[in-house]
Amino acid sequence: MENGKNVSPEKEHPRKAYGLAAKDASGVLSPFTFSRRNNGDDDVTIKILYCGICHTDLHGVKNDWKNTVYPIVPGHEIVGIVTEVGSNVQKFKVGDKVGVGCMVGSCRSCNSCCQNLENYCPKLILTYNSIYTDGTMTYGGYSDMIVVDEHFVVRIPDNLAMDKGAPLLCAGITVYSPMKYFGLNDPGKHLGVVGLGGLGHVAVKFGKAFGMKVTVISTSPKKKDEAISKLGADDFLISSDSAQMQAAMGTLDGIIDTVSAQHDVVPLIFLLKTHGKMVMVGIPPRPLELPVFPLVMGGKILAGSGIGGMEDTQEMLDFAAKHDIGADIELISADYVNKAMERLAKADVKYRFVIDVGNTLAAA
Amino acid sequence: MENGKNVSPEKEHPRKAYGLAAKDASGVLSPFTFSRRNNGDDDVTIKILYCGICHTDLHGVKNDWKNTVYPIVPGHEIVGIVTEVGSNVQKFKVGDKVGVGCMVGSCRSCNSCCQNLENYCPKLILTYNSIYTDGTMTYGGYSDMIVVDEHFVVRIPDNLAMDKGAPLLCAGITVYSPMKYFGLNDPGKHLGVVGLGGLGHVAVKFGKAFGMKVTVISTSPKKKDEAISKLGADDFLISSDSAQMQAAMGTLDGIIDTVSAQHDVVPLIFLLKTHGKMVMVGIPPRPLELPVFPLVMGGKILAGSGIGGMEDTQEMLDFAAKHDIGADIELISADYVNKAMERLAKADVKYRFVIDVGNTLAAA
Repeated sequence: MENGKNVSPEKEHPRKAYGLAAKDASGVLSPFTFSRRNNGDDDVTIKILYCGICHTDLHGVKNDWKNTVYPIVPGHEIVGIVTEVGSNVQKFKVGDKVGVGCMVGSCRSCNSCCQNLENYCPKLILTYNSIYTDGTMTYGGYSDMIVVDEHFVVRIPDNLAMDKGAPLLCAGITVYSPMKYFGLNDPGKHLGVVGLGGLGHVAVKFGKAFGMKVTVISTSPKKKDEAISKLGADDFLISSDSAQMQAAMGTLDGIIDTVSAQHDVVPLIFLLKTHGKMVMVGIPPRPLELPVFPLVMGGKILAGSGIGGMEDTQEMLDFAAKHDIGADIELISADYVNKAMERLAKADVKYRFVIDVGNTLAAA
Repeated sequence: MENGKNVSPEKEHPRKAYGLAAKDASGVLSPFTFSRRNNGDDDVTIKILYCGICHTDLHGVKNDWKNTVYPIVPGHEIVGIVTEVGSNVQKFKVGDKVGVGCMVGSCRSCNSCCQNLENYCPKLILTYNSIYTDGTMTYGGYSDMIVVDEHFVVRIPDNLAMDKGAPLLCAGITVYSPMKYFGLNDPGKHLGVVGLGGLGHVAVKFGKAFGMKVTVISTSPKKKDEAISKLGADDFLISSDSAQMQAAMGTLDGIIDTVSAQHDVVPLIFLLKTHGKMVMVGIPPRPLELPVFPLVMGGKILAGSGIGGMEDTQEMLDFAAKHDIGADIELISADYVNKAMERLAKADVKYRFVIDVGNTLAAA
């Protein structure tokens, strides 16, 4: 039991840490005492102040993807303050406001890493439920502190609220990265956003900040008002209304589809102009049924996209700060996290829960 | 019967024409006397010398897509000599070697047309089995002459063989256009070509002429020798050999998938590098089963592409001439066309039948 990997989480590293962990597939989060590594030469130690609750966290604690190692400390939308830096650290100093997103390591030498696409590195190390280079499990941001290689740490600009900024580390970059890659950031272009949740509402904000026309497409008529009045979307389509969908055929330059539930993508593809781009950032549980004809007619693209690289993540935060974009959040105390998970499962949140780690975790 | 649309094909236009038509879903082609319009101000009259046999022709004569209007004169890989030009015609003069591909008309004013993507115009008029602006059916290149708006006519460069050049008008542009659009024409990049038929073998030739590494992927081990020795491909993968496919994972910048038969695209997607592009130019009869995860992991693209615009078609022919690229063909006489169709149905051709219209049609 003392040979490295098999040491208990509480003793495997020298620094004490405290967080919330699920211990089994019930997914119930409870207090968890564990440990973090000493701050290495390239590392930054962060006192965590806020952590967003991503839908992935819910899948993780429930072992929905059959890859959860318990205990699991979720959280990959982390914002905090630097408390220590290693001797090689160049980007940060003690007291800086910083963020950590979905990843804390990658090989740094593969083709993807060399193109600043660490998110597609085959050796990507996720912020939690992943095995770090030292063989120990990674634990996420539902905790009081974290030690991270500075390459995977980003600066939180001064005028970006730390709580509203936290969800940008996952939800924000997940939509920003494909919008940039596929040129869906040009003023005057017409963007479709499918699904108005944690990702979708940020995509609408980015689209408007880019100067685009934005149409929200949703199954839920009641979201029309919030899409247009609150988020500033230009138009709203109910995906089940075939007359509306028909009338909008061939009008969109691109679509960011944030929906993870099973759904028919063909009516969405028909909304695209010639050479239009449909980007899936959610992963429905079963394969799509995809006839090829609608893609061939119009030279259309169906793409997938997963989070984004570190350089893009910093760019996204700087853009968000400049355009006063944050997530719409419900700030919760740490002892509310299980209730928040229940509500998240019912999509009962506008649009992101953020845990007030700094003020409430110790008491959880 | 004399009100325009209902006049017989033989009398609806003033000029006599002669060709081969299928009269019913047996698909058997037999002599057919019909008519062509007078040469209008923007038109070019072409004496047809060669016409390629595309797999689409076979679908057309058999009514496989349930949209055939009989009698049907197939043929959209047409090469011939200009015999008359209208007063507005600027690009051509009598005696020029010219070609006509899959389309003879489009609206010329929509977004697609304005981007030189007439192939994606919603009002696209196909070279055969389509309704022309005057309300009459279009008849294709299995015939002695054709009258076409000069916009839809391309120049056949002097050093491009007319018979081997004919299939480029459909097979050539269908692969060239997406290779160009998706940047799969950069020296040093690695291209995969799925299927080694009429389209695939031209894609290999273009890939090599672009200076790319080309890997052919096929179900048929016996095609390895022809792919590498005859066509100059660098590598060959048998798609059913999972060890081979596994070893090649993440190596391709893009794939041109020419296969119209139902097949699993997921193992092909795994061959792509990060941000790799998989382009379908064949249309399998049933929808693909497409899990989204393989697209999200690596930010990959599945696209469709249909033929190409007129500007690209001319560019493709000029490129082919410069690099001495023609289709590998079996030149047949017009009276062999039914036998050729039978053999095409069994993929028994390397790689394209071309009808020697000029020398043999009158006798058919």
